[in-house]
Amino acid sequence: MGGGEHKEAVLVTLPMQEPHDAIERLQKKFPHLKITYRNVSWTKDRAQLEKEVDKELWKEATVLLTLSALPPKPSDAPLLDFIQLFSAGSNQLASHPIYTDTDIPIATASGVHGPQIAEWVIMTHLIHTHKYNQLYDAQKQHKWGSKDGSYRVSDSVGMRVGVLGYGSIGRQVGRVAKAMGMDVIAFTASPKDTPEKKKDVGYIVPGTGDPDGEIPSAWYSGLDKESLHNFLKQDIDLLLISVPLTKETTHFLSTEEFKVLSQNGKRPAYVTNIARGPIIDQPALIEALKDDTLAGASLDVTDPEPLPSDNELWDLENVIVTPHISGNGAAYVDRAFQILELQLEHKQKGEKYINVVNRKRGY
Amino acid sequence: MGGGEHKEAVLVTLPMQEPHDAIERLQKKFPHLKITYRNVSWTKDRAQLEKEVDKELWKEATVLLTLSALPPKPSDAPLLDFIQLFSAGSNQLASHPIYTDTDIPIATASGVHGPQIAEWVIMTHLIHTHKYNQLYDAQKQHKWGSKDGSYRVSDSVGMRVGVLGYGSIGRQVGRVAKAMGMDVIAFTASPKDTPEKKKDVGYIVPGTGDPDGEIPSAWYSGLDKESLHNFLKQDIDLLLISVPLTKETTHFLSTEEFKVLSQNGKRPAYVTNIARGPIIDQPALIEALKDDTLAGASLDVTDPEPLPSDNELWDLENVIVTPHISGNGAAYVDRAFQILELQLEHKQKGEKYINVVNRKRGY
Repeated sequence: MGGGEHKEAVLVTLPMQEPHDAIERLQKKFPHLKITYRNVSWTKDRAQLEKEVDKELWKEATVLLTLSALPPKPSDAPLLDFIQLFSAGSNQLASHPIYTDTDIPIATASGVHGPQIAEWVIMTHLIHTHKYNQLYDAQKQHKWGSKDGSYRVSDSVGMRVGVLGYGSIGRQVGRVAKAMGMDVIAFTASPKDTPEKKKDVGYIVPGTGDPDGEIPSAWYSGLDKESLHNFLKQDIDLLLISVPLTKETTHFLSTEEFKVLSQNGKRPAYVTNIARGPIIDQPALIEALKDDTLAGASLDVTDPEPLPSDNELWDLENVIVTPHISGNGAAYVDRAFQILELQLEHKQKGEKYINVVNRKRGY
Repeated sequence: MGGGEHKEAVLVTLPMQEPHDAIERLQKKFPHLKITYRNVSWTKDRAQLEKEVDKELWKEATVLLTLSALPPKPSDAPLLDFIQLFSAGSNQLASHPIYTDTDIPIATASGVHGPQIAEWVIMTHLIHTHKYNQLYDAQKQHKWGSKDGSYRVSDSVGMRVGVLGYGSIGRQVGRVAKAMGMDVIAFTASPKDTPEKKKDVGYIVPGTGDPDGEIPSAWYSGLDKESLHNFLKQDIDLLLISVPLTKETTHFLSTEEFKVLSQNGKRPAYVTNIARGPIIDQPALIEALKDDTLAGASLDVTDPEPLPSDNELWDLENVIVTPHISGNGAAYVDRAFQILELQLEHKQKGEKYINVVNRKRGY
């Protein structure tokens, strides 16, 4: 590996008990690797983290898998030539000299959440369309309520999901929605006007997602209001918000957008946010939910978090609020190591890494 | 049509307000049809129903779309040569002379429920695996509960669904489950050992299901205990019961089956029943749920129905009970007319009808 001048030394520093199984699998796959594990604190305090990893470990490390711990200075890790982050984002490192003063490739774990969060999206969509909360309340009361005929719901065949941000999560929602007989349309910041641009070039949990971008029946793009509105007026039944939070996407959806979203539709749209709370102008959302501009909403993220206990969203009948848990998956660790394994294969073969942060763009 | 000797006269008799849109679409598609609608009572009382449809209508009818109303005697409807039922089953007609004494093809609406019930299955699976009831209870209490770390769930990637009865519902569950990254295995009464036998030859809601039987990674068959157990021991995470209730399938699953189901698995299995309550030995199920042989159950059917209010199932924490509503879909009428439309096309072209009842087999 790397020409063989030095032994490949992988340093793993995570704020958790050593994941023995994952490390064993990695060692088995790459018998010649030296793999060292350090359990560090769950903190972003650099001084604290620096104390917790011996200088010798930084010195020999060629590959690092980490959440927040980094070598204090680039010169402390002279052999380091690849960093795999344990997180889907990289903003926790943006001011670190390794980030600002070196070109060492830094890759994120983006993609590991795809299936987990997509299931949350499909689940809340079905809970809404099949009126599950009503069924659950009846069960609690031991009430067999079918005979009054009040329960009649629409399945999703022929409904349209609009995916605002067609990344790993949006693609997996698209895959499942299409299997359910729904139509899928996609919105991206920049145009995806060639087969090459439609591809997902990041990590994909095997057997999921939309690697080639074949699922959407139509693609829309642009970060200006006109482009956004053009997408929102496509008779969307379920709008999934899965864009990153940036300056442009802050309050991306407000009163006007909710109106556009629902005015052309056969029925009011349902809005799902698994991205970040501030992408939605939350008071405007509450208004649109209360005056029936929208059919409902499911929100795993709010503004602020935690959502204050006196916020109206908690009690609105067509709203599902969960405490930013849609990505809390038991498979996270295994999949993060799966990415590291792929990266080591790429390294061995001299191929490009995946999920590499574009330092200029910031993700 | 039919050689043109007589005008094709379609009589529609249903216990509901006239579905104008559906009839209009049918008329538009077949301008030369004479379509007559009669709103009849919601009853199975033959004498009552016979009074509600004029003799003249029976006399001219060549095609009938009905739930329970039939011509009193075969000779009352001399031109009748095809009957499309509005129901997925045909047992309501089994003793009628039209059924016993004629060969007029009778077709069911089997298949219309596929997507609707499949969504109920996927929804309850996700509610269980993502612990939604716990999230809902927290929402009611305005409680933002993520920070205690207690919420960490498994997504479905790599899980296995065993479909006991690979019909229209099971096939659509298979389609969605596969999109979610699950493995699908199928069980059928008779062996599906050729591509031809694997096909779904009944009505399929367009864009759904598994028309060619391509989704399962393995097929199992046989109604004897050994065959059933061989299927049940395939490390199934989610067992879907979607077989018809017959003498053989009554109490098809009992203590022994629940043990076989879970003993080989990495984790206890979850059982879902959308077919008929008596297929499960219910006291045995309750035991298996209480002693953790099973991870949980979702039941849209029980034994008896309604489920008595003092039955233990209502309160078991890992059990979802709903009052036989999984098929109560708003699209039912439209899809039943879609079947009739297909049948009229088949008739016009001299092709075979779909969903025709095998009078010997009884469905």
